[in-house]
Amino acid sequence: MDRFSRNVAPRNVNVEIVTIGDELLLGFTIDTNAAHLARELAAIGVAIVRRSTCGDGADDIAAAVREALDRTGAVITTGGLGPTSDDLTKPSIAAIFGRAMRLDEAVLENLKGRWKARGWPGDMPVANRQQAMIPEGATVLANRHGSAPGIWLEDEAGRWVVMLPGVPREMRGMCADVLLPRVRERLGASATVIASRTLRTSGVAESALPEILGPLASGFNGLSLAYLPGWEGVDLRLTCRGHLATEAAAMLETGVAAMRERLGVTVYGEGNDDLAAFVLQQLRARRMTIAVAESCTGGMLGARLTAIPGSSDVVLGGVIAYSNEVKEKHLGVHTSTIAAHGAVSEATAREMATGARTRFGADVAISITGIAGPDGGTPEKPVGTICIAVDVQGAVQSVRPAVVGDRDEIRSRSAQAALSLVRRALLLQSETT
Amino acid sequence: MDRFSRNVAPRNVNVEIVTIGDELLLGFTIDTNAAHLARELAAIGVAIVRRSTCGDGADDIAAAVREALDRTGAVITTGGLGPTSDDLTKPSIAAIFGRAMRLDEAVLENLKGRWKARGWPGDMPVANRQQAMIPEGATVLANRHGSAPGIWLEDEAGRWVVMLPGVPREMRGMCADVLLPRVRERLGASATVIASRTLRTSGVAESALPEILGPLASGFNGLSLAYLPGWEGVDLRLTCRGHLATEAAAMLETGVAAMRERLGVTVYGEGNDDLAAFVLQQLRARRMTIAVAESCTGGMLGARLTAIPGSSDVVLGGVIAYSNEVKEKHLGVHTSTIAAHGAVSEATAREMATGARTRFGADVAISITGIAGPDGGTPEKPVGTICIAVDVQGAVQSVRPAVVGDRDEIRSRSAQAALSLVRRALLLQSETT
Repeated sequence: MDRFSRNVAPRNVNVEIVTIGDELLLGFTIDTNAAHLARELAAIGVAIVRRSTCGDGADDIAAAVREALDRTGAVITTGGLGPTSDDLTKPSIAAIFGRAMRLDEAVLENLKGRWKARGWPGDMPVANRQQAMIPEGATVLANRHGSAPGIWLEDEAGRWVVMLPGVPREMRGMCADVLLPRVRERLGASATVIASRTLRTSGVAESALPEILGPLASGFNGLSLAYLPGWEGVDLRLTCRGHLATEAAAMLETGVAAMRERLGVTVYGEGNDDLAAFVLQQLRARRMTIAVAESCTGGMLGARLTAIPGSSDVVLGGVIAYSNEVKEKHLGVHTSTIAAHGAVSEATAREMATGARTRFGADVAISITGIAGPDGGTPEKPVGTICIAVDVQGAVQSVRPAVVGDRDEIRSRSAQAALSLVRRALLLQSETT
Repeated sequence: MDRFSRNVAPRNVNVEIVTIGDELLLGFTIDTNAAHLARELAAIGVAIVRRSTCGDGADDIAAAVREALDRTGAVITTGGLGPTSDDLTKPSIAAIFGRAMRLDEAVLENLKGRWKARGWPGDMPVANRQQAMIPEGATVLANRHGSAPGIWLEDEAGRWVVMLPGVPREMRGMCADVLLPRVRERLGASATVIASRTLRTSGVAESALPEILGPLASGFNGLSLAYLPGWEGVDLRLTCRGHLATEAAAMLETGVAAMRERLGVTVYGEGNDDLAAFVLQQLRARRMTIAVAESCTGGMLGARLTAIPGSSDVVLGGVIAYSNEVKEKHLGVHTSTIAAHGAVSEATAREMATGARTRFGADVAISITGIAGPDGGTPEKPVGTICIAVDVQGAVQSVRPAVVGDRDEIRSRSAQAALSLVRRALLLQSETT
């Protein structure tokens, strides 16, 4: 790992994040807010230099925020803005700034309006009035995503604390709506940023990538490169630090183009792109339909494809063929094939794919049969042996990759490998026709 | 939320956690280590009173750990124990304690042995020797899960820092192997703990639970109760604070029994129990087999059932019937049924279930058809309309729940609702036979 914080120009703001809540401190809830804020802020030139989590108690909040303010003068908090007596973020932080709490009539009217609009019976409970109590001199930040408004509190010396709600959906919405625009305005156009782009590869081992990348393998032109292997394949993250946003975007654009040229078809997308979505697009562009035949994955591949909205014009369906009898009766696999080669074999996978294609009247079918474990492995076919076949309009291809991991990983990797095989078969078909 | 930290007897240890790494601070990696440590430590009577995340820089580490030590005198760190020059946790913390670093021959031999055992070519790289550098006077904590050993460093005043690796699998292993036993020994038998048990319910709305629970609805006998709704159903967490471990276990046992009596069949398990695993057990106990017929879930239900090791004696397979044609041709749904009631209807769901049961020769079949969105909804059948049917040896039941959420949530909740329906149908069958 590298020293990003040292590359950030001093004109940039250093910020600390304090996430508030006993549930976080006890470990019942995983803190995803801090990571979201850090990523979003880095992209506009703000360096998060420390983050802390404290409990709901007034003293705990006051201590954590005071210490963070003393270090950086700029703090973002999440949590503790709710309507109950345990939500003490606002008064605790107001006390640090020596401010009294006052009722904000506009916020109160807004809360009453929300209560009414929901059609709840009776008047708004008194407890909700607490959400309309605002530290004197604070700026109220509108929350379109929930009832608790955010607060921006600042003193004469320019030290500030922004308080955001703890519910991730609300926090994310307010981060985009109000936090980022305000911070960006404050930084002006001269802030340097930490920006990154991620290329997604499939069907290539992490250890094979440095050779393919050659001179780009350990970063280039001021860009650093991280290899991030996972069950979906190996992601390659290019990061640019210490440049203006426009410069960084141009550097990354050039870097991504150079990487793509070397990596060729192994790249299937960027960022959070889903290989299943890409395959669906390929099929739709060719006006093709698909069916699946799944043994060890038991429906995961179908679930991946149908997770994408609007998939019904491409996905016809499929057979979950967990038992041999189902493979024979519902996919037309020959008893003799299973007897000669076993249920986990390329021969069986090929007959499964062709059976699914013809019986469902699809243009393309994909099949998976394998040993996901933990039991069922043999010396010849250990756990992780996977056979995958794709039938594209009668042209059948199959592979037998060795997949590693526990049962869940093996199944996930198998579905991904199957999608990767379809993708390549379709690319190949396009090239040859 | 409540004030757990105030209920903990003063004889208990207050600890801070410091997680170290630029990747965490930048938000590229979500910090799951801190939550895991907090839960495990709470269960043996240790209160986490603050946690912090800092970058990889030596100054950053030293500042964060020194401040934490000043507050509590007891700190657990994760991360920065790797073999590269950026892994600075050990020397940074050694400096706080005024200790020099020295090469530990036993650790070095162990590292060399690991290198050799893996069959890697050549001698161990010099960089790896850094992992054998240990602060003077520190205790080395064996790591059975990776190469970096943990470190326990303590001064004359009894202030201590434990350094654990950042890789979650290694950290969790070492937490169980060495951290918890050592901390437990130090606390002795007089420590009070925070202990909890979680009951899992399905098929009942959160808002209906208080009435069912009656006098237990807001905690009882010193136990607090939290309602945790999610796509799997509503979990109910009972928490006991400030008692000895044995007392807490007895109080929770009594509490769980009282809750179960009131909740009856809505409870399907505890902790992380999986409803699919429970259904598989039910079926196996009755020597029954199952088949699935899935439209909008596209394979998720099959994937849930086959995710469980050894499911092949119960699960035969199923049909992913995404198109109407597949529903008719492969499940025997009548064209007239779809014409009269629509593809998303209880009538269609019932024919799908029966078709799957008879065609696959299963004892039980379960079907799902619905509108997962975001498109495809109508005023009569809005997005979230789900029809589920179960056929148990010819006896068919169906329901049409309204499910909320985005496409992914609707599909997940649908699969869970289907499993819930099978479970109840089997319980009902047992009662009547």
